[in-house]
Amino acid sequence: MPHFSRTESTFTPPVPEAKRWIEGIDFPADRPLINVSQAAPVDPPPPALRRAMAEAMEVPETHLYGPVLGLPKLRAALAKSWGAHYDAEVPAESVAITAGCNQAFAATLAAICGEGDEVLLPTPWYFNHKMWLDMQGVRTVPLPTDDRLLPEAETARTLITERTRAIVLVTPNNPGGVEYPAETLSALYELAREKGLWLIVDETYKDFDSRTGAPHDLLKREGHEDTLIQLYSFSKAYRLTGHRVGAIIAKPALLTEVEKFQDTVAICAPQLGQVAALWGLENLSQWVSGERDEILARGRAIAEQFPRLAAKGWVLKGLGAYFAYVEHPFAAPSSELGPKLVRDAGILALPGTMFMPEGDTTGERHFRFAFANLDTQGITTLFDRLCELDWPLAGKDSAA
Amino acid sequence: MPHFSRTESTFTPPVPEAKRWIEGIDFPADRPLINVSQAAPVDPPPPALRRAMAEAMEVPETHLYGPVLGLPKLRAALAKSWGAHYDAEVPAESVAITAGCNQAFAATLAAICGEGDEVLLPTPWYFNHKMWLDMQGVRTVPLPTDDRLLPEAETARTLITERTRAIVLVTPNNPGGVEYPAETLSALYELAREKGLWLIVDETYKDFDSRTGAPHDLLKREGHEDTLIQLYSFSKAYRLTGHRVGAIIAKPALLTEVEKFQDTVAICAPQLGQVAALWGLENLSQWVSGERDEILARGRAIAEQFPRLAAKGWVLKGLGAYFAYVEHPFAAPSSELGPKLVRDAGILALPGTMFMPEGDTTGERHFRFAFANLDTQGITTLFDRLCELDWPLAGKDSAA
Repeated sequence: MPHFSRTESTFTPPVPEAKRWIEGIDFPADRPLINVSQAAPVDPPPPALRRAMAEAMEVPETHLYGPVLGLPKLRAALAKSWGAHYDAEVPAESVAITAGCNQAFAATLAAICGEGDEVLLPTPWYFNHKMWLDMQGVRTVPLPTDDRLLPEAETARTLITERTRAIVLVTPNNPGGVEYPAETLSALYELAREKGLWLIVDETYKDFDSRTGAPHDLLKREGHEDTLIQLYSFSKAYRLTGHRVGAIIAKPALLTEVEKFQDTVAICAPQLGQVAALWGLENLSQWVSGERDEILARGRAIAEQFPRLAAKGWVLKGLGAYFAYVEHPFAAPSSELGPKLVRDAGILALPGTMFMPEGDTTGERHFRFAFANLDTQGITTLFDRLCELDWPLAGKDSAA
Repeated sequence: MPHFSRTESTFTPPVPEAKRWIEGIDFPADRPLINVSQAAPVDPPPPALRRAMAEAMEVPETHLYGPVLGLPKLRAALAKSWGAHYDAEVPAESVAITAGCNQAFAATLAAICGEGDEVLLPTPWYFNHKMWLDMQGVRTVPLPTDDRLLPEAETARTLITERTRAIVLVTPNNPGGVEYPAETLSALYELAREKGLWLIVDETYKDFDSRTGAPHDLLKREGHEDTLIQLYSFSKAYRLTGHRVGAIIAKPALLTEVEKFQDTVAICAPQLGQVAALWGLENLSQWVSGERDEILARGRAIAEQFPRLAAKGWVLKGLGAYFAYVEHPFAAPSSELGPKLVRDAGILALPGTMFMPEGDTTGERHFRFAFANLDTQGITTLFDRLCELDWPLAGKDSAA
């Protein structure tokens, strides 16, 4: 029997792979690369936060190990802010700080799943979730979504077995952009509760939801702590991607399990990222509102300009947070068109295949555009270049 | 069948557990707690490094995601420094940067082991190694050490099965303090090579080895890249524990596997830690020499003062790096004496049970003292308090 290690059981990370497509290619100064591949701010945090971070260098604790589950002040501050947003009671003991939201997911899954367990992931999915499940020996059960990229509880119900441990949602969704309606979350929560599963809701893009107020009421439900786990990232709101800081909101007994993973894999989240996140919670709510307005404006620009692409046969499947998920009109599959898009149009975007199960060909018809770093002019240029593509179109049959 | 998650298959992390022993206890000002539980500097980095770190706050890249396997400049700088130390060729592509050495171990094991594989760990072991193997579904095979806490290749040979993937060594050793002689490493390397295993050498305490020059010649051997993996931490040398930065030195093909784990669990190591490690490599070699001199002087103070403890029945089993591993003379087991030591003597130290397989009672006879933060006066006070203990002594039989 051939031997496979944990990492050999999964695929090459998509973002570094896509970055290799641009290696050795010269982009002319008047036609620079448009990079819509990664969901990350490209600007540094605001000056006042940078100054606070520089000042933290003279606080000895910034340089030392901290508590495994995070700085108590940060846990308390996030609990307060989270509770206010959801109009619910969130104790500080229900918050754990991790080195980013990917790690929050990894630690959570390690705390609830063992070898051979199963987890439901709506498709298209966030590839790092799939990779971690592969590496943990957990079988990922794809949960197909409807025309609006929404998962349905009744479909999920048919996929649950005695090995199922959790349903994982991302809202606003990566890669689909779609904001899950409260009814979608409610139906999946009730299903999870009925079946004794965890409902994990990755809310990395929470701060860029176009709806005002709480997007769901799950935290207000009696006994939610035995079903609901929420994940969060400070990376996007405060532009702290390089500092690695995220969080888990879950019942303390589960966080005691998470602590074992965190102690072993991280010891603690980086202290400076935690100091910065705390400063952000205390000082940047107004600033984050402005960031949200800007991202929402960019999303509207995508929607307003989309008819130009629609006229060329493109379809906008999902739009929200940092993402537009689009169907392309071309005959060739997106896995081939990805590198070709770099060469022919100077655009780096991830093909839908990177978000879909192997063998599911619908990914070949799609691309994800992570547009958060493009202003309105940038979106215009992106669309100009896409409109210019003269690649062979798919026939009516193959595009169906 | 009861369900166990990955984290449920391992034990509570020892350091946070021990920290709970001091909760709610008041230590008088004239008799403060002596904390010898964790192997970490308590002072911040030197002022010039702190200034460099503060200045890095105005470099936008410090705040952004970086390459999954680390900053190219840092990989190149560590490769150069590592190669110079070992008088060997180390390409930058053979270095990966991780968020600390614990993560370096986690990523490495994920890259080489799958469910049901086996790994040999000399006892006493570093508990986070054991915890990760548990969480990965890898069976830890304890490799007993000799009177000097050294593992022997001929013992290891008898424990190898067709599921064995690696032998893991820590030198200078945590918790034992012992510096592995070149012959020990050579014999285990040859065994690993013969059996097609990986030899993983965790060199976290490399900068505090009392020997001058390279402690082994494994990197100079033809074809070493198919057997040898080295792990490193920047935390101790530059006092960067809170910034989470470590490294793996291994062949590039293996690092391609490591990249999958890092992308999924960390995305990248924190950028500021990497900037600081690079600055340290470029500017702090003289300063680190001074740090090493100080740590070695503290170790000598332990050795010089030990006769006072020996007169009370204590035995020094291992001494080096940050650690003294000692046998105590008392009737009660160390797992009971740990919390009692806090209450009766104001000393927090980890019992040997935390470094030994469950059911192996030799751990009950031992403590690890992580002495790096105690100056000579501190060591005198530690020993004074230990000498005062009037706990019941073990009979000759039970102490054997």
